[in-house]
Amino acid sequence: MSNQERFDTFFMIKTENIVTFFLETRQYTETICKPLEIEDYVVQPIVDVSPPKWHLGHTSWFFEEFILKPYKPNYRLFDDDFAFVFNSYYENVGKRVVRNDRGNLSRPGVAKVYDYRHYVTNEMKEFLQSEISSEIEEILLIGIHHEKQHQELLITDIKYILGNNPLLPKYNDSFQENPVQDVKQKWIEMNEGIYEIGHSDPETFCYDNELGRHKVYLHEYRISNKLVTNDEFIEFIDSGGYKDFNYWHAEGWDWIQQNNIHQPMYWHKIENQWYQYTAQGLQKITKEAPVTHISYFEAFAYSQWKKCRLPTEFEWEAAEENFNWGSRWEWTESAYLPYPGYKKDKGALGEYNGKFMVNQKVLRGGSVATSTNHTRPTYRNFFQTNLRWQFTGIRLAK
Amino acid sequence: MSNQERFDTFFMIKTENIVTFFLETRQYTETICKPLEIEDYVVQPIVDVSPPKWHLGHTSWFFEEFILKPYKPNYRLFDDDFAFVFNSYYENVGKRVVRNDRGNLSRPGVAKVYDYRHYVTNEMKEFLQSEISSEIEEILLIGIHHEKQHQELLITDIKYILGNNPLLPKYNDSFQENPVQDVKQKWIEMNEGIYEIGHSDPETFCYDNELGRHKVYLHEYRISNKLVTNDEFIEFIDSGGYKDFNYWHAEGWDWIQQNNIHQPMYWHKIENQWYQYTAQGLQKITKEAPVTHISYFEAFAYSQWKKCRLPTEFEWEAAEENFNWGSRWEWTESAYLPYPGYKKDKGALGEYNGKFMVNQKVLRGGSVATSTNHTRPTYRNFFQTNLRWQFTGIRLAK
Amino acid sequence: MSNQERFDTFFMIKTENIVTFFLETRQYTETICKPLEIEDYVVQPIVDVSPPKWHLGHTSWFFEEFILKPYKPNYRLFDDDFAFVFNSYYENVGKRVVRNDRGNLSRPGVAKVYDYRHYVTNEMKEFLQSEISSEIEEILLIGIHHEKQHQELLITDIKYILGNNPLLPKYNDSFQENPVQDVKQKWIEMNEGIYEIGHSDPETFCYDNELGRHKVYLHEYRISNKLVTNDEFIEFIDSGGYKDFNYWHAEGWDWIQQNNIHQPMYWHKIENQWYQYTAQGLQKITKEAPVTHISYFEAFAYSQWKKCRLPTEFEWEAAEENFNWGSRWEWTESAYLPYPGYKKDKGALGEYNGKFMVNQKVLRGGSVATSTNHTRPTYRNFFQTNLRWQFTGIRLAK
Amino acid sequence: MSNQERFDTFFMIKTENIVTFFLETRQYTETICKPLEIEDYVVQPIVDVSPPKWHLGHTSWFFEEFILKPYKPNYRLFDDDFAFVFNSYYENVGKRVVRNDRGNLSRPGVAKVYDYRHYVTNEMKEFLQSEISSEIEEILLIGIHHEKQHQELLITDIKYILGNNPLLPKYNDSFQENPVQDVKQKWIEMNEGIYEIGHSDPETFCYDNELGRHKVYLHEYRISNKLVTNDEFIEFIDSGGYKDFNYWHAEGWDWIQQNNIHQPMYWHKIENQWYQYTAQGLQKITKEAPVTHISYFEAFAYSQWKKCRLPTEFEWEAAEENFNWGSRWEWTESAYLPYPGYKKDKGALGEYNGKFMVNQKVLRGGSVATSTNHTRPTYRNFFQTNLRWQFTGIRLAK
Repeated sequence: MSNQERFDTFFMIKTENIVTFFLETRQYTETICKPLEIEDYVVQPIVDVSPPKWHLGHTSWFFEEFILKPYKPNYRLFDDDFAFVFNSYYENVGKRVVRNDRGNLSRPGVAKVYDYRHYVTNEMKEFLQSEISSEIEEILLIGIHHEKQHQELLITDIKYILGNNPLLPKYNDSFQENPVQDVKQKWIEMNEGIYEIGHSDPETFCYDNELGRHKVYLHEYRISNKLVTNDEFIEFIDSGGYKDFNYWHAEGWDWIQQNNIHQPMYWHKIENQWYQYTAQGLQKITKEAPVTHISYFEAFAYSQWKKCRLPTEFEWEAAEENFNWGSRWEWTESAYLPYPGYKKDKGALGEYNGKFMVNQKVLRGGSVATSTNHTRPTYRNFFQTNLRWQFTGIRLAK
Repeated sequence: MSNQERFDTFFMIKTENIVTFFLETRQYTETICKPLEIEDYVVQPIVDVSPPKWHLGHTSWFFEEFILKPYKPNYRLFDDDFAFVFNSYYENVGKRVVRNDRGNLSRPGVAKVYDYRHYVTNEMKEFLQSEISSEIEEILLIGIHHEKQHQELLITDIKYILGNNPLLPKYNDSFQENPVQDVKQKWIEMNEGIYEIGHSDPETFCYDNELGRHKVYLHEYRISNKLVTNDEFIEFIDSGGYKDFNYWHAEGWDWIQQNNIHQPMYWHKIENQWYQYTAQGLQKITKEAPVTHISYFEAFAYSQWKKCRLPTEFEWEAAEENFNWGSRWEWTESAYLPYPGYKKDKGALGEYNGKFMVNQKVLRGGSVATSTNHTRPTYRNFFQTNLRWQFTGIRLAK
Repeated sequence: MSNQERFDTFFMIKTENIVTFFLETRQYTETICKPLEIEDYVVQPIVDVSPPKWHLGHTSWFFEEFILKPYKPNYRLFDDDFAFVFNSYYENVGKRVVRNDRGNLSRPGVAKVYDYRHYVTNEMKEFLQSEISSEIEEILLIGIHHEKQHQELLITDIKYILGNNPLLPKYNDSFQENPVQDVKQKWIEMNEGIYEIGHSDPETFCYDNELGRHKVYLHEYRISNKLVTNDEFIEFIDSGGYKDFNYWHAEGWDWIQQNNIHQPMYWHKIENQWYQYTAQGLQKITKEAPVTHISYFEAFAYSQWKKCRLPTEFEWEAAEENFNWGSRWEWTESAYLPYPGYKKDKGALGEYNGKFMVNQKVLRGGSVATSTNHTRPTYRNFFQTNLRWQFTGIRLAK
Repeated sequence: MSNQERFDTFFMIKTENIVTFFLETRQYTETICKPLEIEDYVVQPIVDVSPPKWHLGHTSWFFEEFILKPYKPNYRLFDDDFAFVFNSYYENVGKRVVRNDRGNLSRPGVAKVYDYRHYVTNEMKEFLQSEISSEIEEILLIGIHHEKQHQELLITDIKYILGNNPLLPKYNDSFQENPVQDVKQKWIEMNEGIYEIGHSDPETFCYDNELGRHKVYLHEYRISNKLVTNDEFIEFIDSGGYKDFNYWHAEGWDWIQQNNIHQPMYWHKIENQWYQYTAQGLQKITKEAPVTHISYFEAFAYSQWKKCRLPTEFEWEAAEENFNWGSRWEWTESAYLPYPGYKKDKGALGEYNGKFMVNQKVLRGGSVATSTNHTRPTYRNFFQTNLRWQFTGIRLAK
């Protein structure tokens, strides 16, 4: 299967339509940032969260570095120093040695970053008026999906920035985090046998880590049609789930002790009532909504307490047509590993996925923060086992 | 090499023979320690290495805690404080709060620990003269295998203690670490299809993590009949393998930078010639011997450089009858996860395996340090990706 | 330069003039921040540096907490949460537990902080129209001096924020850091004998750590009339001063190794030429200007290399009328300790100085960043031995 | 108690007697180690404590390195590697890079270290039969005093090794740590005026940091004739002294929080009764004995709680003839700084004192563990403000 085949007709995107796709994506990133005050663009409370202005710059730098610079004739860099500031693999070299934490950089200022952004968007727009090669089109598509990935990060990073501020300011009125699942819990029965896993449609876009469609043998299993709810998770807390080491991995137990973890991220107990910080500020827990902002360690401990387990990513993919998904990234038991026959792309773009394939867990699904067209049944998200700032969730299997 | 051959002795073990098996195991542990000076029993240079006297005490405590105390009538503990000192899950509680690093404890002294050991062995011997229930027999077997596991650790820990001493003292004359593989490298071709994985024989011993024999679907693959040699690994070093981030996981790359890793553990370059610390002291590299004391990160990087990959644990098990193994624990690409239907044992013995099933890699095979009867084709060893003090090795697949 | 001259204006401050003194001080703080972009107000690159908006809020909180709240009838707090945010002794308590690094807080925003500031200034202005007790006047004076101290920190913190940004933006055109000393170096000879040390004039303001005027016996010594220049310090660098452990304290030597220190802070070597980041951006070193941004460790090492030593704070105070000072805080050999008979104030204000009297060094003088009327010959500044972001300098003695 | 009395023996040491002095010192070091089991020689529970066998080797290496090697004709090193192992300024260089923690080195074994020790003693004995120059005699004296200093460290390090073992083994029956002070507490009044400080007698030994006898001016003060007792310290604990930040330096307060400090080192509360680990094992607190194993931070906090202060080292030295001292090293308020005119010795021996003159406090007196002839009224001991494993104590002043 060639690169060409894969990208030929992604959702009918051809020459002129891809321009619209590009421009809409660029626009939506800015829409996400609209509710922010300038100060919110600057801070980086933990290393996993990036300042919003960095996301704005970095997604622009991607197009500048991989398309405009090599392919647009006479392209002039917006600013020579920006590669240095907005490259995510930024290492301190050269004469001006500085501390590299992104949250320490007040300059370039937000206005300047928007100038950079608009400059790149316009240069790209101009560039896309002429015919582009399929090779460039492929990079363009990756760039668009790269930006969509950062849109999700923008939302969760903004939530972290505001939700860890003592004033707990709200983000906006419209972003709904907590859909209520209006189905009854039941167990979907899946038969033993051979299943095919991985991306198959040569017409549609996917990342390299989904390729290498292959067979797996699954034994009989049952998987829940519903995500674990806040209400159910409160039962786990109330029955001492965070205090009994039997439910936890040794590493998870150490982690909750050292970090003093007793509940999901963003939960506050006020006068014996659970509250949750959301995009609309501090609110009472929605009992029927799927629990979120829990680590793999917590998802696993919950499943143990419930005498169940987490599904593997293969079980999830084989069953996904039978349940609704998309509001939470769902932790699986699978470690993030290459599929049989995985080949990483050449050069810088090849660094995208492969080099992270150790000591991380696969998450499947998508979340309320995931951009449209950005997830699919074969999509493999991955995080370290202690991370909680994404909209993660729990689906049980047995 | 068949399963059958390897477990012959084991089959014969029933009631009376198990006493011999027990006593031989107890004896062999002491044989391993014979070449040591008293001082060597005490130190703990890194957290993964335990002082030899701790191994001697801990393997005795196991029989005292799980057999003598609950089952032997009128059993008198050797010393009330020893549970406190030799329990591997030792946590600081109670009135006499002390630092818990094992290498800081000069007391109980070595002679006292041997007294304890002999006391427990004799009490066990006496106890085993009467009929024992199958339940106790099972615990006894686990205890024996537990001690065999510690025998391997004893050897590798002693190597670490001596091999990181500036005087590089030798251990003994007889322990041979570096068998030469006298076969020509060739690729074993394995067919696509369904394979059965896991321990099947109900008559023989295995750990809980090997149970749940199940089917896996494997695609066509090739696996080397031979382990990577020192000579081949030197090529990797010489061609700049430790200096090119393209071969490494992001986490592995950070690890070699931070720890200044440029060669396998115990290698020294003296006057442009590679030497290796062995049980016989510092010696010239045996070129044809399988490379050892490399981390998973290094095994993976080597495989990338060689344009191959590491096998999964399933590929390894499906093919193992076709090649010789047993001199190195072989890193696989598989994360250490439960098999379908895995159930951990109840109580303290159940903590043995399950709680480590996250962020570790499976190793298959066995090593020059592994005790007889202690490994088998389904045996699953596991370590964190950066550990090197075991006799690890590399077998390539593609 | 006499004490008298320096405090003339101060003497005139009584009842009505103190209002002007207060308002001018409040105004000057804002003047310092004028050149900043909003983003610059938010970041905290190292723990010793506070975000400018925090300084603006904290100096306002001081007046609110210690004057308006207890003394102004019917005073309404601007915001109940601000005590929580702007108290410098802020500890995480209560229900909304958040990470306490100041640089992670994007809210309250800069505009809101200025609103707070102006609200407090106006309320104070109103309050000061009525007669105030001498007790309140004393607190008011401390509050004003407290803010003046923060003015100096504001300047050095802003310099750190901009000077550690890879774009090295300039602050303004007017702030001159590098006065040239137009005198010839000579040694001032001081006689052996008894000297009086500490603040004496009951009419003028000082901190509690300057009180307890007392006698010290000094042996004959010589002290330089001039600070060590950049040119002289370059000689130290060029002769290997940073590479020879003989010049350094053991702790200082460890510190330069671990932090890779080879030159003063803000120095950059470009094409074999030394540059220095200043308020006007990157500039060639002014050779005759006093060296600055060096730690006590470096000041000491320089003195050893020069076969001299640093003066004690007593030697400095006894001789200060004989030389010009005020452009650099000058490291002394004296540890920061209480004077005989030192009594710390009661309550929160008493925590101001005493609790820091361990493991710090005294600096004497003042700097280009020190506010007018804020230093005096008896003023005792103090910092840990490794800090460099203040305008520190070196005066030699023997 | 006069200088004279204390140094009587010393005066007699000339040429032949110095040999006896040397041999007795060498012997006494071994006497201290007599009660140890071999295992006790090896461990290093914290970085400030050295393994006894290291002390034995290091004090021997000193004579080999500074006397035998340079001055004894045809001297043969006992072992080429030992300089590497027993040099206290040991840094990892060269080809055999190893972890440098002393407690990780099981070899050379204890018997070998004693061989080394006896070899050096005998070679020295032989060497001292011929006339030696005054230059060598001076080094010899330093070497002897160096060993006496290590004798004290040996005792306190052994106490740490045994006292932090959960079995709390006893050291011996004879070493008495807790002398009872049989005097009534009273305040010694000292007059204002000029006092002379520092070592004066050119005939007697002292370290370079005591030289530069000089004048200091002291104001009227009172100093206690008695050390603070365990009983008095229990009052401090019981009244919440460890819980009220007002008594503590900011740095001390952080230190007790982070390290969970609630009582002196080696104290255990068992059934509401205070016990103390001593050379004879765990024993009830001797109420009238001087409190010991407290840090400077705790000594200071106690003095604040008692509305007193600690004396300066000058106040101590000026008053010392008026009270008994010698059972505890007494924390002073003075930072460890050079005396006027301090000149450090040239070469390696000059590193002895000067390079530690920052961020440490002076202790005066001596302790139950100090070797005879090793302290004097001008002796300046020094430690970081958090260290507690020495026999430290508290004498109040006001």
